[in-house]
Amino acid sequence: MNKGLVFVVSGPSGSGKGTIVEVLKEKAPNIGVAVSATTRAPRPGEAEGVTYYYKTREEFEALLAAGEILEHTEYSGNLYGTLKSEAEKVIGEGRDLILEIEVDGGGQVKRLLGDDCVLVMLLAPDAAEQERRLRDRGTEEEETIQKRLQKARSEIAVAGDYEYLVLNETGKQEECAETLLAILKAAHNTYPRLRCITDHYFD
Amino acid sequence: MNKGLVFVVSGPSGSGKGTIVEVLKEKAPNIGVAVSATTRAPRPGEAEGVTYYYKTREEFEALLAAGEILEHTEYSGNLYGTLKSEAEKVIGEGRDLILEIEVDGGGQVKRLLGDDCVLVMLLAPDAAEQERRLRDRGTEEEETIQKRLQKARSEIAVAGDYEYLVLNETGKQEECAETLLAILKAAHNTYPRLRCITDHYFD
Repeated sequence: MNKGLVFVVSGPSGSGKGTIVEVLKEKAPNIGVAVSATTRAPRPGEAEGVTYYYKTREEFEALLAAGEILEHTEYSGNLYGTLKSEAEKVIGEGRDLILEIEVDGGGQVKRLLGDDCVLVMLLAPDAAEQERRLRDRGTEEEETIQKRLQKARSEIAVAGDYEYLVLNETGKQEECAETLLAILKAAHNTYPRLRCITDHYFD
Repeated sequence: MNKGLVFVVSGPSGSGKGTIVEVLKEKAPNIGVAVSATTRAPRPGEAEGVTYYYKTREEFEALLAAGEILEHTEYSGNLYGTLKSEAEKVIGEGRDLILEIEVDGGGQVKRLLGDDCVLVMLLAPDAAEQERRLRDRGTEEEETIQKRLQKARSEIAVAGDYEYLVLNETGKQEECAETLLAILKAAHNTYPRLRCITDHYFD
């Protein structure tokens, strides 16, 4: 059985990555998702290893320092992240795992997983369309929008951490998702992933 | 308009690349093919730039020395090769170009075209199946078969020149061709090919 791949999909606000990831999951229902770790306290009905892996802040920070957390973010005073062990469990079962993460997390995932992951950055077709999408949500203050636009600028500046760029053109979500699936398929066939076959072809 | 890509497909004897390339051309009729250059004399009915580009051996060797020939081979005392200018004409029109070439030619094409090409090596699923396919043609002397098996060994040893490896499993030619098309699609979306977009996103 071939090992799966961690498929990292990132993109600035307005790239439309949330929608595309949903389309992707519909098209490829075998793609797994990882249970995240968090420092937030469990709520009634939640279960360890199902909803989240619950960690104290000290535990979480120790895992981070040990390179055991692929990517993380802080929200409302709590840390959320993806355990390397969780990702390796899924791909070890031969399934691909989709990780929709912040742009600044891609490089770190690559360093920790190497050829076991592939990084794709989604972008709106151009800056004007990206701003339009941000504004069309209609729920944000101008200040928030300006902050997000500023953040998008710095995110696009680090696009070089990513292996693939895909433009998410308006009204072409299907094509965009198909391109992502093509990248995932191609990534399974890179020489570094399959060199074990040629190395032992005549054994 | 986006520039096309030179899609290099190679594989040892018995990999089944000839058949796969035919399936590929049916599935993607827009993929172009290059008119080759040759030192062979024109035959009646052939036309310069249509059947071949006709060159003297001196001209061909001068082009080779100048890095103007992507790959070449000698057959019955004549040289045959692909002109870099011809490939650039096709991809400049925004079309992809398929080059089915010998395994030892891939590295050279990469050096001359860089990010404008993608290299895929096809393989039979294992050495036993590869030998079976060679023998099943039934037309070859044992000595020829042994030579081809020996050649395949040395070809697989240089698989590292190639960016992608694809197993051409028996009875799964459709899947194999689909994988090649996914690789071609992915190759259009690599960061080096699209970095011009992020570099000028906010211009």
